[in-house]
Amino acid sequence: MSKKRIAVVGGTGYTGVELLRLLLVHPDVELSVITSRSEAGRAVSDLFPNLRGFTDLCFSEPDTAALEQCDLIFYATPNGTAMQQVPALIAAGCRVIDLAADFRIQDIATWERWYGMSHVCPTLVKGAVYGLPELNRKALKSARLVANPGCYVTAVTLGLLPLLEQDVVANESLIADCKSGVSGAGRGASVGMLMGEVGESFKAYNVTGHRHLPEIVQNLSQVSRRPVALTFVPHLLPMVRGIHATLYARITDRVDFQALYERRYSEEPFIDVMPSGSHPETRSVRGVNTCRLAIHRPQDGDTLVVLSVIDNLVKGAAGQAIQNMNLMLGFDECSGLNFPGLLP
Amino acid sequence: MSKKRIAVVGGTGYTGVELLRLLLVHPDVELSVITSRSEAGRAVSDLFPNLRGFTDLCFSEPDTAALEQCDLIFYATPNGTAMQQVPALIAAGCRVIDLAADFRIQDIATWERWYGMSHVCPTLVKGAVYGLPELNRKALKSARLVANPGCYVTAVTLGLLPLLEQDVVANESLIADCKSGVSGAGRGASVGMLMGEVGESFKAYNVTGHRHLPEIVQNLSQVSRRPVALTFVPHLLPMVRGIHATLYARITDRVDFQALYERRYSEEPFIDVMPSGSHPETRSVRGVNTCRLAIHRPQDGDTLVVLSVIDNLVKGAAGQAIQNMNLMLGFDECSGLNFPGLLP
Amino acid sequence: MSKKRIAVVGGTGYTGVELLRLLLVHPDVELSVITSRSEAGRAVSDLFPNLRGFTDLCFSEPDTAALEQCDLIFYATPNGTAMQQVPALIAAGCRVIDLAADFRIQDIATWERWYGMSHVCPTLVKGAVYGLPELNRKALKSARLVANPGCYVTAVTLGLLPLLEQDVVANESLIADCKSGVSGAGRGASVGMLMGEVGESFKAYNVTGHRHLPEIVQNLSQVSRRPVALTFVPHLLPMVRGIHATLYARITDRVDFQALYERRYSEEPFIDVMPSGSHPETRSVRGVNTCRLAIHRPQDGDTLVVLSVIDNLVKGAAGQAIQNMNLMLGFDECSGLNFPGLLP
Amino acid sequence: MSKKRIAVVGGTGYTGVELLRLLLVHPDVELSVITSRSEAGRAVSDLFPNLRGFTDLCFSEPDTAALEQCDLIFYATPNGTAMQQVPALIAAGCRVIDLAADFRIQDIATWERWYGMSHVCPTLVKGAVYGLPELNRKALKSARLVANPGCYVTAVTLGLLPLLEQDVVANESLIADCKSGVSGAGRGASVGMLMGEVGESFKAYNVTGHRHLPEIVQNLSQVSRRPVALTFVPHLLPMVRGIHATLYARITDRVDFQALYERRYSEEPFIDVMPSGSHPETRSVRGVNTCRLAIHRPQDGDTLVVLSVIDNLVKGAAGQAIQNMNLMLGFDECSGLNFPGLLP
Repeated sequence: MSKKRIAVVGGTGYTGVELLRLLLVHPDVELSVITSRSEAGRAVSDLFPNLRGFTDLCFSEPDTAALEQCDLIFYATPNGTAMQQVPALIAAGCRVIDLAADFRIQDIATWERWYGMSHVCPTLVKGAVYGLPELNRKALKSARLVANPGCYVTAVTLGLLPLLEQDVVANESLIADCKSGVSGAGRGASVGMLMGEVGESFKAYNVTGHRHLPEIVQNLSQVSRRPVALTFVPHLLPMVRGIHATLYARITDRVDFQALYERRYSEEPFIDVMPSGSHPETRSVRGVNTCRLAIHRPQDGDTLVVLSVIDNLVKGAAGQAIQNMNLMLGFDECSGLNFPGLLP
Repeated sequence: MSKKRIAVVGGTGYTGVELLRLLLVHPDVELSVITSRSEAGRAVSDLFPNLRGFTDLCFSEPDTAALEQCDLIFYATPNGTAMQQVPALIAAGCRVIDLAADFRIQDIATWERWYGMSHVCPTLVKGAVYGLPELNRKALKSARLVANPGCYVTAVTLGLLPLLEQDVVANESLIADCKSGVSGAGRGASVGMLMGEVGESFKAYNVTGHRHLPEIVQNLSQVSRRPVALTFVPHLLPMVRGIHATLYARITDRVDFQALYERRYSEEPFIDVMPSGSHPETRSVRGVNTCRLAIHRPQDGDTLVVLSVIDNLVKGAAGQAIQNMNLMLGFDECSGLNFPGLLP
Repeated sequence: MSKKRIAVVGGTGYTGVELLRLLLVHPDVELSVITSRSEAGRAVSDLFPNLRGFTDLCFSEPDTAALEQCDLIFYATPNGTAMQQVPALIAAGCRVIDLAADFRIQDIATWERWYGMSHVCPTLVKGAVYGLPELNRKALKSARLVANPGCYVTAVTLGLLPLLEQDVVANESLIADCKSGVSGAGRGASVGMLMGEVGESFKAYNVTGHRHLPEIVQNLSQVSRRPVALTFVPHLLPMVRGIHATLYARITDRVDFQALYERRYSEEPFIDVMPSGSHPETRSVRGVNTCRLAIHRPQDGDTLVVLSVIDNLVKGAAGQAIQNMNLMLGFDECSGLNFPGLLP
Repeated sequence: MSKKRIAVVGGTGYTGVELLRLLLVHPDVELSVITSRSEAGRAVSDLFPNLRGFTDLCFSEPDTAALEQCDLIFYATPNGTAMQQVPALIAAGCRVIDLAADFRIQDIATWERWYGMSHVCPTLVKGAVYGLPELNRKALKSARLVANPGCYVTAVTLGLLPLLEQDVVANESLIADCKSGVSGAGRGASVGMLMGEVGESFKAYNVTGHRHLPEIVQNLSQVSRRPVALTFVPHLLPMVRGIHATLYARITDRVDFQALYERRYSEEPFIDVMPSGSHPETRSVRGVNTCRLAIHRPQDGDTLVVLSVIDNLVKGAAGQAIQNMNLMLGFDECSGLNFPGLLP
């Protein structure tokens, strides 16, 4: 079988370089095009020296004709870019995975409020498949357009899914205390993300409201089939990669939670339910597509504590996108993703 | 007025060196004795080069006679040491501040269960004053024996105090999601605290139960005058100093929370209630005795979020001990503690 | 004696906030004005929360009249700003300390080549005193205009000074391998200084040529009275504060180097020559104005190795500026600078 | 071809876990045995959670019979262990790669002086092949016993090799200013490597003498065929992985150095000579077996500066050992090592 042709639009950020790292050694695909307006003409490996020796590609100006010749196009662009270009590509028969937020929220008004712009192709949103394989595997296999989930959203949704599916906790008082490495903020110049500002310090941010909140609530409401209320507090860690979500839920039905999680995820290749009493470290998933979970019920009380760790750039972005690509193109779901994390 | 004579017992850990940093420039005291069995004979400034030029003291073998000649003795020893030696010093008329846990928990059975040893002087515990000035200022002024609070405990208690005093949140479902720099774990050799293990990673620990839990519950129950249930999840940050407590409480009375905090702490020299909408950074309190607080009510919902930051070695240990000393010896409460934090 | 009135021009960077931290608790001065075009009207403690409670000042628009009423003005502006404004202030009788590079290089052509602009007041440069007290103490006491040294320059010059004064090493093959924390790069937005770029990594930069090179060579040539050639390689450390200079010199005269350094710096309040065999840590000078030095001669060979550490924001910038101010205004040289570093 | 059977002796350190990470996805081998006295009986993936899902192996007691059934045995034990056990394995026909120092130094007296013990099998040392493929590829293909190089040694030797082979710099005044992440110090409990001690700080260590010095000198003397004198100063970086060697040499012959390096390493799969003017970052080789080099001649002067970066656990230890294994067992030299580094 000849390799599938792949394009990446907007590959100069952290999600972009991570996609490239994974695509360049993926056995079933060939990276054909990578576009960037700002870096057009520059060798990819000049911007990202870790890729030296793995590709001779240069960034190119976005060019619809070139993209249309690809089997699948990843959008690793800022929010609001993909929705401008994707309709034409879908019409041309391409498959698309958007790693930004353009197609994640089914309620267009909600999306427009949180993202501060008008949506230009609401009907495409309806047809888009939300790219969380643990929830939508079947639909993903035939999807033309996939909305790849947000990083916090992935960690929180996977951590709470079994509880809400089984209706064993209170839906209206969920808490997600999340901590992210700085790469989650992207590669754009800003004072706030200088190492002089965020190194050797820790803080919460956006406590009043973060864009990932409506996306989490959409996921949880869907599996719960009842309204869900969640308090979501993101924090910034003085490190580069990794998300740790500490999830709190009030127990309404005292089932065997460890067994519930093990059963729910027994067939999932990228979900690892750790033994009872474990404390997953973010470094255990560094560079890999795994979500590690641990379930605690402190002092046998009414509060369940779920610990959920992912690499924000892999299962939280590029790795999950590859997993979705594998499903969409009929590859082994683990193809190109089957190696251990980098520890220490 | 001649300077008061001060001793530090067990000064080779992080709490010890931080006490020394603060005592050596304190205008009202003279550091006379510093003991350490393991380092006896060694110059203090040889072990801690930041103190070169500020003291010629050497560590000495513990010697009761020398200690008894001091006005106040700090114990910066492991749990279980102070209770062996303090009764004799109290009998000799000295004042003592224990930075370990020996005198913190009034219920001796609870203490013995969490600390895994028998208490040798339970009656002294009854007479000890718990060293949180914001709670016990008056008693501290005449105290002979002070139990200096734990670091997490300080951040959590100060963050929840106004709510429980005013009975405006649900007492039985409090959550404290706490993150600490590694210096909180002390200066003892261990694999688990190697930089190779905890650098560039993040995890929860002791979710099943941490010794600071009963101490927090004791404080909160006291101010609340009702039973309190708290879920306490500590995490380890890849940085050296600082604690960030993210506190969640279900609102039962919709008062003006910002005003409540500002009023409660208006006279407190070391509590800073930040403006509404703020996100305190741990670095803003690096090296200083301040606790910074911010109050949020996301989406105007039922969950109140309080952000509380301290330097675990200062307001969480040595600085609070100095504040207590100032009260006990009749100095200005801020003496030796009145300078800004180190940012960046 | 009434306190002297002090102004800071351009106080929104790391050098600015460090100046403020030190000035606000300095016993002999009063901070009267702090200017910033971009932040005019904003409370200083809003931008730098570590200063909350220590000042009510707001940033103001630069205003010559207000500045002229001050006894001394610090310029913490980008290179090229001070030279525009300082002539008027000097003419008005003010004293000025420029923390940027405008007055550091006596050879104007050299300055213009490295800084890429024309100098607007070359005659003022001639009269400026180079603000390294260990070299120019006497001149500083009567100086009107002081050029505060660069951070790397301070660490390297103090490390090599005794050798070149005594002519005991080869002048033409000196090597300075320097490592700096990220705060040395300032607080301007840039991709290159994002924590995602420089965290958990290490690299050299500007190996081809760095602006501090001509300044170091100027200092060393002056004390040596012979031409000096130096290879200077700066590196970026994944941490916030601190410079470590590792200096290599070929020995031409086998004197007792340890004694030479101890003698040279015996009266210097901010130079600490450590015992033979020591390895100074940057953290031992965190937040303080000390330069710690250690002298090694590995395998008793021909190469002398000098280790020199400073806090780039203190002895490398704001602290040295305060030391210079103390000399210029007749205060105790150590006033406001006499406290130990923050370790850990 | 059936997969070769591999054993790892002493796999509980950082070199051990890195070997496991690489071996468990190597296409040509099967990990059959992993021994550890201290952890015998424990699942490998319990100690190293990044390996969960990749192996069911447990650590076992060292057992010569089990080892003898393997085709190749890696020793990842402390210095002095391999020399006790390897003679029997070699006699039994096994191939062995020692990642410690037991077989690295040909001069036994030198080895005994630096390592502080008597060597028990000096004759085996003579027959051991030094495992730097760029120097000894041919001999490695038929080697029975390979001494895997030290981490600093690899970075320095590869950086200076072309210069000494061509005799274009002064042999007697080489300088290697090296900086290493903390994982180079291993996973043993120690105060000195606590994150509280080495986080957010930087220092030199062992300036008087480090065990890697004689090994570097042995390598350089061999290729130079003349005596070599090197000043080697190691430093500790506040990060986990990576070595950066900054190398200084006095030029004696003004050749085209860039071309010299490109030519020398043109066929080397794991050496990347970057374009002139580059500054390699340690993160560009994180997790991979590449050594990146850049050549500078500042101010066109007499001093050549070579920048050399490796991952101390990969090209500096486990990856190089796999490369050696590939050569010894007749696999493609890049087998199992052919993927890009993890950036950011």
